[in-house]
Amino acid sequence: MEKTIIDSEAIRSMNKNERVHLINSLCGFKSVSLIGTQSKEGNSNLAIFSSLFHLGANPALFGLIFRPSPPERDTLRNILDTGFYTLNHIHPGIVYQAHQTSARYAPGVSEFKETGLTEEYKDYFIAPYVTESAVQIGMIFKERIDISINNTILIIGEVAQIYVPENCLLPDGFIDIEKAESITCSGLDSYHTTQRIDRLSYAKPDLPIHSIL
Amino acid sequence: MEKTIIDSEAIRSMNKNERVHLINSLCGFKSVSLIGTQSKEGNSNLAIFSSLFHLGANPALFGLIFRPSPPERDTLRNILDTGFYTLNHIHPGIVYQAHQTSARYAPGVSEFKETGLTEEYKDYFIAPYVTESAVQIGMIFKERIDISINNTILIIGEVAQIYVPENCLLPDGFIDIEKAESITCSGLDSYHTTQRIDRLSYAKPDLPIHSIL
Repeated sequence: MEKTIIDSEAIRSMNKNERVHLINSLCGFKSVSLIGTQSKEGNSNLAIFSSLFHLGANPALFGLIFRPSPPERDTLRNILDTGFYTLNHIHPGIVYQAHQTSARYAPGVSEFKETGLTEEYKDYFIAPYVTESAVQIGMIFKERIDISINNTILIIGEVAQIYVPENCLLPDGFIDIEKAESITCSGLDSYHTTQRIDRLSYAKPDLPIHSIL
Repeated sequence: MEKTIIDSEAIRSMNKNERVHLINSLCGFKSVSLIGTQSKEGNSNLAIFSSLFHLGANPALFGLIFRPSPPERDTLRNILDTGFYTLNHIHPGIVYQAHQTSARYAPGVSEFKETGLTEEYKDYFIAPYVTESAVQIGMIFKERIDISINNTILIIGEVAQIYVPENCLLPDGFIDIEKAESITCSGLDSYHTTQRIDRLSYAKPDLPIHSIL
C-alpha cells in the first residue's frame, strides 16, 4: 500500500478542522468515558471525554487533559470546586446519548436531563454516576498541573471507588472491559467495539510468550 | 448484573500485581504503539508503550508517561539524548513481536534484532521506524514535566512526520486507523481489534446527531 506523507509544514498549514481530525485520530484508540460532576450550586453535569489516561497504580492515579474550550469548562470548574468526579464507561447502547453530552449546553443545564441518562448518587460521593454504565469509578482530585506549551491543564485524580460487573473482574485483578461492553474511540467522533486477539504472558528475554486466556 | 465494589482501602491493601492489573484495565482501552529510538552510541531500541495520549492539535503534541522501571529507561534516555523518537502502530500480524519488546533485554541489545521487526530510517530522522507498521509517526521532543506525586515523567513531543496508508486518510483529515488495522489494548497484556459502531456529527443542543459515515 502506498503511503501518504505529511510533514510538519503540511500539518501547520492545514485548516483547523482538518488538523484536529488528523492529529486526534493519529494518536491511536482512546479511552472514552462520561465524567459526572456537580457544581457548588448543586447542578449536575455530564460530559464525554477521551483524554483520560493511566498515570500509576500505587497510588491509583489517572490523568485527564482539559483544553480551554467551553464545553469542558463546567467539568473542570466543578472538579476544582468540589474535589469529586466520576468516570463512567460507555457501551454501545448509550453511545448516541454519550456523544450528545458534548453539545454546548448553557451553564446550569444538566446533560443528564437533556440526554435521558440517569444520575445516581452513592456512598459519600457528591458527584453523580451514570446508572446505565457497567463500569463506574469514583475519583478524588489530587493535583493540577498547567501545561504552558499549549495552555492545557492536566488534572490528576485518585481512584476512590470502583463498581464493576461481578463477572468482569478476573482473579488476577484484570477487569475484562470488553466483556463489560466498554467501547473505545478514535479521533473526535468515531466509536468502536473491540474483539480480543489475546492476553499475553509477561515477556522475558529468550522465552517465548504465550496466551494466558 | 450484580456489581463488585472496591474502595480505596481495598485498592491499597491488594497485592501489587493484582492492583497493577486492576488499575491498568480500569482506565479503558488505550493507544498502543512501538517506540523506536537510537542511543547516542548508535544502538537502536524498540519498546511497546500504552501511555501515549493526545495533548493538542495546534501545535500537534502527544504526551507519553514514563515510569521509573528498567525496560522504559533506555527509551527515555534516548529521547532525552537525541530529541527524536518514532511511534509505530501495531496490527494483529505483529502483536506477539510487539509484546516481546517489553522483555528486559540487556542495554545495547536491539529489540529489532531480537523480535525480527525491521528498522527503517527515513528523511532526517535518526530514530528508526518499524517497516511492518502501517501508520508511522516521527516525533520531536519538546518538553519534560516531572510528576512528583508518583515519580513519573511526562514527555511531550511534536508530530513532525506522518506516514499513513493512502486509502486510510479521509478528506476531512480523519485517519481511519481501524482500516489500517491498528489495534488497541487494555490492561498490561490484552490486545484487541476494533469494529466501528459509527462516526457521529458534531453535537449541538436541541439538534439530533447523525451518522457521518
